[in-house]
Amino acid sequence: MKKRICILGSTGSIGTQALDVIGQHEDLYEAYVLTAYNNADLLIEQARKYNPEAVVIAKETNYERVKEGLSDLPIKVYTGAEALCQVVQDENVDIVLASMVGFAGLEPTIAAIKAKKMIALANKETLVVAGDLITRLANENQVPILPVDSEHSAIFQCIEPGNRIDKILLTCSGGPFRKFSKEQLKTVTKADALAHPTWNMGAKITIDSATLMNKGFEVIEAKWLFGVKPEQIQVVVHPQSVIHSAVQFEDGAVKAQLGVPDMRLPIQYAFSYPKRLSLNGERLDLFQMKDLTFERPDVERFRCLGLAYEALKQGGNMPCIVNAANEIANRAFIDDRIGYEQIATIIEKTMQKIPFTADSALETYLQTDQEARQYASTLL
Amino acid sequence: MKKRICILGSTGSIGTQALDVIGQHEDLYEAYVLTAYNNADLLIEQARKYNPEAVVIAKETNYERVKEGLSDLPIKVYTGAEALCQVVQDENVDIVLASMVGFAGLEPTIAAIKAKKMIALANKETLVVAGDLITRLANENQVPILPVDSEHSAIFQCIEPGNRIDKILLTCSGGPFRKFSKEQLKTVTKADALAHPTWNMGAKITIDSATLMNKGFEVIEAKWLFGVKPEQIQVVVHPQSVIHSAVQFEDGAVKAQLGVPDMRLPIQYAFSYPKRLSLNGERLDLFQMKDLTFERPDVERFRCLGLAYEALKQGGNMPCIVNAANEIANRAFIDDRIGYEQIATIIEKTMQKIPFTADSALETYLQTDQEARQYASTLL
Repeated sequence: MKKRICILGSTGSIGTQALDVIGQHEDLYEAYVLTAYNNADLLIEQARKYNPEAVVIAKETNYERVKEGLSDLPIKVYTGAEALCQVVQDENVDIVLASMVGFAGLEPTIAAIKAKKMIALANKETLVVAGDLITRLANENQVPILPVDSEHSAIFQCIEPGNRIDKILLTCSGGPFRKFSKEQLKTVTKADALAHPTWNMGAKITIDSATLMNKGFEVIEAKWLFGVKPEQIQVVVHPQSVIHSAVQFEDGAVKAQLGVPDMRLPIQYAFSYPKRLSLNGERLDLFQMKDLTFERPDVERFRCLGLAYEALKQGGNMPCIVNAANEIANRAFIDDRIGYEQIATIIEKTMQKIPFTADSALETYLQTDQEARQYASTLL
Repeated sequence: MKKRICILGSTGSIGTQALDVIGQHEDLYEAYVLTAYNNADLLIEQARKYNPEAVVIAKETNYERVKEGLSDLPIKVYTGAEALCQVVQDENVDIVLASMVGFAGLEPTIAAIKAKKMIALANKETLVVAGDLITRLANENQVPILPVDSEHSAIFQCIEPGNRIDKILLTCSGGPFRKFSKEQLKTVTKADALAHPTWNMGAKITIDSATLMNKGFEVIEAKWLFGVKPEQIQVVVHPQSVIHSAVQFEDGAVKAQLGVPDMRLPIQYAFSYPKRLSLNGERLDLFQMKDLTFERPDVERFRCLGLAYEALKQGGNMPCIVNAANEIANRAFIDDRIGYEQIATIIEKTMQKIPFTADSALETYLQTDQEARQYASTLL
């Protein structure tokens, strides 16, 4: 019996790689629903190739185009944000791959959890914004949340049932500005930031990697996925990105997962867990490695990482505020409206401005998100 | 209910560290039997401290001394090789830690397996000489063999039930002569060889580490413990000894166990598996690490490693021949009777001389061992 997969965000970096994984294991997996926000052409191409039951083009102005592009095929075409929350509940869907970008991934993921679908989670903002709510719902509905981030997948591959985690070593390439001085960081551009040293990803996450906000979000994500305290999560700058992350146990043993940078591995592992399947592609060759090195992260130069830790310690709606302000600042940086240094400043000011609450209802997050975005936008 | 442990070789490096582990977890483990070959004074001291049910001093001329040293205590004192095979069968013994040195560990280990005791195996020669026989007996008696070598424990910590091993990456410090030329190797001394860069071990294994015969034996051991083919075992020279070994799976994921050099970890893990227990001592600090590096092993300079692979491929009694010749050559090198280069030469000549047989009966191994030792001794 094939597992039927709904890919939220099939035209993005994770989505396209997930389709490659599905294509390699057609006997085991089926792309049952594909969704995209905007990219009608690629969605049409994917639908013609993978023949899903349905597609969703979230942006309504692109609906006619997709509808027409698939008019000769019996594929259902939907549009609008609400449609995303409906398709994940389809009784035939086994796994929902949440690989949309940003806050928009939250509500469809909640709908999928409530429909008791297994979640392969690539959208880290979901846990950043609403980790408390999401983990509570997942527990209530007995739904496994399988991480698709390479770091969290690595940790997930290393943990052992029944054995307590002493410490998580969350590795980090350091981004393109690892060696930049505070002075140099003042003048870096979008183009500089988009040149990530080891991973090829979408624009939003690549900018987040350059500010280390991505790593900050991963710290928050790790807290919720693995039930550890902030002080048990140590970010380790490891420029070669060979060790994808590691776990230390109470006997002192450290277990790590290593490999080449290939997001198909964590995607496939989330689908196949606990089994592993073959995966074509390059293999790690330690003999070809440059020396592996490790450094402490510098929260003076990379203020976003410090702000994320701060938000995690405060809890409540604070990570939601950070995420919203970061989405605004990240976008503004990509649009050349602000400089690199302003990203952290905007986030910090938004954290100071928006009222704190410990309440973890979805409504609270939605409202906090709106308020934080509005305020952050005034700072541009 | 405490687990009762019989330590074969309690006065050696592994044995003394095992007693430290037991001392840290007195609520869980009890040193029930202690055995030593020769070191009467330390055996008496250990027995007075850990109060076992019985001790064995294998060397009969030391019996009276031990008997007298413990005369005020209700500890049974035995002597002779046969006593070793008897104490392991005691109905109260739960775990036998096989940490004797060399071929002498074989028969007591077989007796323990037949008595259905869980085996914590530090004596690699047992699997080198008679891997076929030992794994067959362990299967028949449904006895788990838990590795105590740091490399094999690392591999054991990384494997996953139901997921096939694609490749084992068996790490190796390279020994004290890693950078020596063939010319330089001709003049190295026992003192040079005993200065192992990262692990503090007994003399026999330290010399084996300098020749890389120890790594060759570990390759053979890995084959039997993990059921892989010789070509699936890649020795990786990793001078920092931080990665204790790694496993690659069919999806390309590599899992490794890392840590400080502390044999108490694999000893304790063999006792507590699948649970982990706290263990005092140093923790790995990646920030204090020198760069981690990896090299291919050089079987031209380190001929013993090549000979071990050759013996593994031939199978039958060939690894037994290699082990016997190595024990003679290793001892002769410690006694300043031969030079470093002669160790491999003696082993190679013995491999050529002693008749090959595929038969895997204990009698065959005992006879092969005798013949190989006799012949190797004529080469000194």
